[in-house]
Amino acid sequence: MRIAELSRLSGVPLPTIKYYLREGLLAPGRATAPNQADYSAAHLHRLTLVRTLVEVGRLPISSVRAVIAAIDEQQLSLHDTLGVAHDALPPARPPAVADGDLEAALADVNHYIERLGWTGSATSPARHTLAHALVSLRRLGRDCGPEVFDLYARHAEQLAAREIASLPANGDRDRTVEEAVVGTVVFEAALTALRRLAEAHHSAIRFG
Amino acid sequence: MRIAELSRLSGVPLPTIKYYLREGLLAPGRATAPNQADYSAAHLHRLTLVRTLVEVGRLPISSVRAVIAAIDEQQLSLHDTLGVAHDALPPARPPAVADGDLEAALADVNHYIERLGWTGSATSPARHTLAHALVSLRRLGRDCGPEVFDLYARHAEQLAAREIASLPANGDRDRTVEEAVVGTVVFEAALTALRRLAEAHHSAIRFG
Repeated sequence: MRIAELSRLSGVPLPTIKYYLREGLLAPGRATAPNQADYSAAHLHRLTLVRTLVEVGRLPISSVRAVIAAIDEQQLSLHDTLGVAHDALPPARPPAVADGDLEAALADVNHYIERLGWTGSATSPARHTLAHALVSLRRLGRDCGPEVFDLYARHAEQLAAREIASLPANGDRDRTVEEAVVGTVVFEAALTALRRLAEAHHSAIRFG
Repeated sequence: MRIAELSRLSGVPLPTIKYYLREGLLAPGRATAPNQADYSAAHLHRLTLVRTLVEVGRLPISSVRAVIAAIDEQQLSLHDTLGVAHDALPPARPPAVADGDLEAALADVNHYIERLGWTGSATSPARHTLAHALVSLRRLGRDCGPEVFDLYARHAEQLAAREIASLPANGDRDRTVEEAVVGTVVFEAALTALRRLAEAHHSAIRFG
């Protein structure tokens, strides 16, 4: 198909598609004339993936590029690809300026993750996110340790076990990787939205 | 305390504090001289709250302002305050351009929420987030209805029930409101981070 058709089918504006092409997020089409290229269903699918990462996952373009590169890197094991994808997902903030409270919280979080027996994420930015959350609670006056997260850790553990188990065992690597990345991004947005809707429900019952 | 001390204790740079003062996110200090003001522990606490919403919750300043205004609006019921806070939290994206698929997905999501028996969120942006997630899955090739969210809805329901029940019953309104808002923002970041860490763990076991 021509680029205009790709734009129509994907709902992505033409200038955005051209931007993705320049940024290498989308492979060039097959040249059919000096100024014309042909795009396939694979292009449409990749465009939809990029759009999902940007719109649902709210990833900045630099992170989308890292995730796409990891998906396309055939030499990377599935676990390592998921690691790259995870680390690129927001919130992936750089460590804050030197902050003793945050460093202490990070040490607490690292011990906590160790006690949970969770491996495979030694350098994950998610640990910093958790430390940041813990420091914020303490600064707002709660005298708490990382066990304040116990309830959430339990639910997260149950969800993750089901999610990873549901990935196809001997499927096509590319499809499995994409499914895992999409699952993390899309169901994270869904889980967050559902928690708020459920909170609104229980708040209406109790306080409405 | 003087503003420099407020900056030191909070870790928020002086220009940022001045910006928050101009934006009305922080009440002015008590004037002690033409060019000097005195700040209290309440200022430090409010500053920490603003910082948490910005750094952990990643809220834009306009949303922080809406949340702070709702917290300060004494006439608002607790449930309505939580509603304002929820709706201001990201992802609160405006509805996309006219999109038939998205509208169909939103209708599906609304039926789904109704079937779950969840009330109190008819206009919540979280419904759009959910519709957006559903549309993305469909466009990426999954032939699914909103029951694809069942597992997440179940966990969200259990979490929300515990969270709302744990708010103090007859406490100080301001403290309860703040606790609810902080709980939503901070534990959302924590839940997201924990899910990724748990996924990394299960991915390491299965694929590592």
